[in-house]
Amino acid sequence: MEDKKKPHVVIIGAGFGGMRVTRTLAKADVEVTLIDKHNYHLFQPLLYQVATAGLSVDDIAYSARAMVRDRKNVIFRMGEMTDVDLEQKKVILNNGSVNYDYLVLATGGTTNYFGLESLEKHGFSMKTLDEAVTIRNHILYQFEKAAFEKDPEKRRSLLTFVVVGGGPTGVESAGALSELIHLVMNKEYPNLNFKEVRIILVEASDKLFAAMPAELRDAAVETLIRKYVEVRLCVQVTNYDGQFLTLKGGEVIPTHTVIWAAGVKAASIMHKIAVEKDQIQRAIVNEYLQIPEHPEVFVIGDSAHFTLNDRPLPMVAPVAIQQAEVAGKNIINVLKGRELVKYVYKNLGNMATIGRNAAVVHIGRLKMKGFFAWLMWSLVHILRLIDFRNRFLVFTKWVWDYLFYDRLVRIITRQ
Amino acid sequence: MEDKKKPHVVIIGAGFGGMRVTRTLAKADVEVTLIDKHNYHLFQPLLYQVATAGLSVDDIAYSARAMVRDRKNVIFRMGEMTDVDLEQKKVILNNGSVNYDYLVLATGGTTNYFGLESLEKHGFSMKTLDEAVTIRNHILYQFEKAAFEKDPEKRRSLLTFVVVGGGPTGVESAGALSELIHLVMNKEYPNLNFKEVRIILVEASDKLFAAMPAELRDAAVETLIRKYVEVRLCVQVTNYDGQFLTLKGGEVIPTHTVIWAAGVKAASIMHKIAVEKDQIQRAIVNEYLQIPEHPEVFVIGDSAHFTLNDRPLPMVAPVAIQQAEVAGKNIINVLKGRELVKYVYKNLGNMATIGRNAAVVHIGRLKMKGFFAWLMWSLVHILRLIDFRNRFLVFTKWVWDYLFYDRLVRIITRQ
Repeated sequence: MEDKKKPHVVIIGAGFGGMRVTRTLAKADVEVTLIDKHNYHLFQPLLYQVATAGLSVDDIAYSARAMVRDRKNVIFRMGEMTDVDLEQKKVILNNGSVNYDYLVLATGGTTNYFGLESLEKHGFSMKTLDEAVTIRNHILYQFEKAAFEKDPEKRRSLLTFVVVGGGPTGVESAGALSELIHLVMNKEYPNLNFKEVRIILVEASDKLFAAMPAELRDAAVETLIRKYVEVRLCVQVTNYDGQFLTLKGGEVIPTHTVIWAAGVKAASIMHKIAVEKDQIQRAIVNEYLQIPEHPEVFVIGDSAHFTLNDRPLPMVAPVAIQQAEVAGKNIINVLKGRELVKYVYKNLGNMATIGRNAAVVHIGRLKMKGFFAWLMWSLVHILRLIDFRNRFLVFTKWVWDYLFYDRLVRIITRQ
Repeated sequence: MEDKKKPHVVIIGAGFGGMRVTRTLAKADVEVTLIDKHNYHLFQPLLYQVATAGLSVDDIAYSARAMVRDRKNVIFRMGEMTDVDLEQKKVILNNGSVNYDYLVLATGGTTNYFGLESLEKHGFSMKTLDEAVTIRNHILYQFEKAAFEKDPEKRRSLLTFVVVGGGPTGVESAGALSELIHLVMNKEYPNLNFKEVRIILVEASDKLFAAMPAELRDAAVETLIRKYVEVRLCVQVTNYDGQFLTLKGGEVIPTHTVIWAAGVKAASIMHKIAVEKDQIQRAIVNEYLQIPEHPEVFVIGDSAHFTLNDRPLPMVAPVAIQQAEVAGKNIINVLKGRELVKYVYKNLGNMATIGRNAAVVHIGRLKMKGFFAWLMWSLVHILRLIDFRNRFLVFTKWVWDYLFYDRLVRIITRQ
């Protein structure tokens, strides 16, 4: 007698959400295919440290196959989803197609330029490993060019770095960039005057870290200013041609480097999925995280629009992980004929670091800043890394950089 | 009264030779400009470990500026030499030009395909960091493709890896590739049969490690065979179209991966330098390492042709380092009006590793193989790395990989 074929769950995306669904289903009576266009899981919260020469790519990228190799019912497939046939229950990849009984879309987010095409063309996005390495190479190369540039205007333009976006990514990037330049590189360019360096953080609203309480927001601004970062609030960017950044109101900043950390939207593949979506292409899900017309399709994390008090949830890792657990459980519930569970958002708080000894932490009623907040940020991020070796290597690098004011990865791998 | 301007020494190349000249001249009464097209010093002997996912790029690449930052008379400049005007004593770069009083050419070697254009076009060279990362990405990607390839012929072709060249680089690469595949990756592709994998090491002469004594050569062959590497001696490669590798005699091997480690020649910039050269573009130098017609120009390492017993010296790091010390001293000798010293080659021996617990070491009368040779190889290479942090991180990774049969850098960063 032939065994009944087990239900096939296809998970698109090996980010925080996709990996957690995989883990939730690892012992269930289903076959799982985990698909990602990369062969690794990326620890995105530390991507900015790759962009600022503190960590190597493999410190924060971990083989997806290694992560699932002990799970007997899981197969990893490297492939890029190009379409979904919701009627036929089939996912189309760039290298084949896969049928599913249940589908979990955990395709994550991508940079949102809000229609500013010139920024999309000439600015730097920082959502992928490749983009982070591109930024690192570019920043280091500007100094190599500036060191032998005799025209002071051109030199200042090479040494002006603009970060757009006052959320955690923008603030952390600006802080890390300042430390790379003013604590490390300033020892190595004897013919450069580091007073010519400008780091400018531009934010369209009137505050950094909009989600944080006022005292922590103020602490972040103070820390940035102490680190020679110019904080420009209520400033909108309108155009950038690769050499001149134009602000609303007409001010022009000559710069070769604009890092865009001002917006996120759902991954562009969501355009192909013909269901109800919000303005930034997130699929509207029900309280069980299903697409209402296709209850066999679950959407989680940055690809999902889940409303709480009339507002969609923030596009952050904790939401993706919480939703992954609910989606995984609900697939099991459906299979066992049990009632589905509703997703309930738990706010785990926010934290961000602005550099050595400086961070802000807001968890429930706890508000911390300064050294102990920074220790807590470091500990939480070390522990959240995937395996022991990553943790050990990142810890070693952080301690070294802290003690010796160093950054190891100051190499230009391409131009 | 104005100070007399110090003599200006320009060093081209921040490899083993160039860095050693810099160090030799660091306290001399000269101004030194060290120029390299990359902003880092590369520890080439471990490049094959980057290609086989054991080490990250920054483990073996170290900021050139960091290396010279404490030397007050040394300036680093990132730039690619495009020409030299020997009469005007001027080096032309892609981003400017520099006048010199003394010039040291330490431009290193590049891959020599011996005119086999199809191999140059479709094969992989492994002389630069970028090439090593390209090989790593390519190897890992072949397995991702093979895992879902149903046609057995195509699958076998994806899983066939050919290394051409039986010198240390070829043997070490084949051994490391075998360990990556048969000790690490074989746990992660449940739908692949690893008996379909072929690793073929092709050598045109009748022996591997031509410079080693017979018993060590035999030990190397035995170890490779134990590691499932097919060793093909007396076999010449004639053509490769990216899918089929043709051997002399007509045999055709279907393969998507041919790594060419069969030859070296002087860096192509040496074509521009109008002095007497040998067939592989190395400048003929006198016993003081000068170009005879231009005694202010010194050439060392892979760019120099220095004859001993009617044969040119091997193109290896120890020769470059020894010559760098002599060239540096001779510049000081010229300036002080002292007699120049002659370069005398000291054979420091040879060593190579074929994988865990397996290496061959030949130093003077000492011949070692197996575990203790491997320990010695590991120790020597750890100690030769540039700084303490590199040493510590590489050591950590080696110990981890040894204990857990792991390779951390199994990520495909581009395709």
